Amino acid sequence: MDNENFQEKSKEVSEPTIRRLPVYHHYLLKIRNENAPFISCTQIASDLGLVPIQVRKDLEVTGVEGKPKVGYEVTALLAAIEKFLGWSNVNAAVLAGAGHLGYAILGYQGFCDYGLNIAAAFDNDFLKIGKFIHGKPVYSADSMESYIKEHKIEVGILTVPAQYAQEVADIMIKAGIKAIWNFAPAKITSDNPTVIIQHENLASSFAVLSSKINTDKIKRN
Amino acid sequence: MDNENFQEKSKEVSEPTIRRLPVYHHYLLKIRNENAPFISCTQIASDLGLVPIQVRKDLEVTGVEGKPKVGYEVTALLAAIEKFLGWSNVNAAVLAGAGHLGYAILGYQGFCDYGLNIAAAFDNDFLKIGKFIHGKPVYSADSMESYIKEHKIEVGILTVPAQYAQEVADIMIKAGIKAIWNFAPAKITSDNPTVIIQHENLASSFAVLSSKINTDKIKRN
Repeated sequence: MDNENFQEKSKEVSEPTIRRLPVYHHYLLKIRNENAPFISCTQIASDLGLVPIQVRKDLEVTGVEGKPKVGYEVTALLAAIEKFLGWSNVNAAVLAGAGHLGYAILGYQGFCDYGLNIAAAFDNDFLKIGKFIHGKPVYSADSMESYIKEHKIEVGILTVPAQYAQEVADIMIKAGIKAIWNFAPAKITSDNPTVIIQHENLASSFAVLSSKINTDKIKRN
Repeated sequence: MDNENFQEKSKEVSEPTIRRLPVYHHYLLKIRNENAPFISCTQIASDLGLVPIQVRKDLEVTGVEGKPKVGYEVTALLAAIEKFLGWSNVNAAVLAGAGHLGYAILGYQGFCDYGLNIAAAFDNDFLKIGKFIHGKPVYSADSMESYIKEHKIEVGILTVPAQYAQEVADIMIKAGIKAIWNFAPAKITSDNPTVIIQHENLASSFAVLSSKINTDKIKRN
C-alpha cells in the first residue's frame, strides 16, 4: 500500500492548505447565500475552529487579500478558490469497478461542483453492464480503452479489487489518462512520470484515528 | 464540511508521518515473509520512493533505531509500529449506515490487522436488518445505543447520509463512544471535548488531485 505523500514533489502550497480549501469554499457558499458580501478572517477562523493566522496564510494562496476592517469579498474569494483548484475547468473522468465503493463514489454529491464529472463507469459484471448507477451509465470493461480515447478523458478513478489495479491502470494510461485516483488497496505505478497518481488509503486514514485513540487511552490510564 | 486537520491539537508526531506508518508496516511484513531479519534505511527509502532521511525521521517515532551497517531489525520494528499506532489493543467498533460506503468499509480487508474490529452494523432498512454483510451482522438502528453500552464499544464509524450524521453521532456519544470516524459529508460536533472526531472528506481528497491536475495543465500549455 502507498500514500499520496510518497509521490509528492516539492511544491509551494502545502497539502493541508489544499485540503482545507474545499472547506473554506463550502463555508463561503453558505455565507454568500446569507447575502453577506464580506467576511472577516477572524469570523472564518472562529466558525471553522482555526486560528486567524492559519486562515490568512491558507487564503493567501488564492491571491485574494482581505481589506482592512471589512475582510474578504466573498464572491471574489469563492472564484479565486475555484480557479486555484482548477474547478473552473471541469475534468471528465471514468470510474473502473462498479462495486460498493464505486457505487458510493458515483453517488457522492458535490463532485460536479468541484470540477469532477464522472462520465461513465466500467465493470465486467454482466448484471451491471447496460444499467445506470446514480444516473451514470455502466459499460463493459472491454470498451473502456476506446471510450477514454474517443471522449479524451483525462481522469481515471480506480475502485477495482487490489489484484486488478495495476492492469486497469495500465489500460487507462495507454488510452491517454493523465491522472489516476486510486482507491484500490494496492500500489500502482506508471513508467510515464507525467501521469499523476493519487492513492487513497483507508488504512493510513485509520492510523491517524488509531494513534489519537491510543494517545487518549494512555492519558486516561 | 470539515477536515481532520481542523480539529488537530498540537502534537509531536506529524500527521504525514503517522499516515506513512501503515505503509512501512505493510512493506516490513513482506520483508519478514522473505525471511530478511534486517533492512537498511536506504533500502526502505528506495523501495518506497522516499528519501532516506525521511524514513529515518519517520521511524524514529517508534523508538527503534537502526544498527550501523545492518539496519533495522524487521520484527522489532513491526512490533514498535503496532504499539505506536495502538494496533496491539484491538478497538471494537460499530458502523452506522449500511449503504454502499458502509458495505465497502465492512468489506475492507485488513482493518482487523490494524486493530479495528467492526463488531456490528446498524441500519433502518428492514431489507438489511438481520442479514450479514461481509460476515458482520446488521441490526436495527433502534438497538444501536443499547448495543454500544452493553458491549462497551468505543469507536463509531458514520456512513449515514449527511442529514442524519449529527443525530446518529449524538446517540453514539451518549452511549459511550469515545471516537467517531465520520464519512458523512457533514460536519459533526460534540459538546464533550474528549470525544475524538475524525472527518474523512472526499472533496478535500479530490482537491489535492485537482490542484495537481491544474498545475500540470498550466505546465502543458
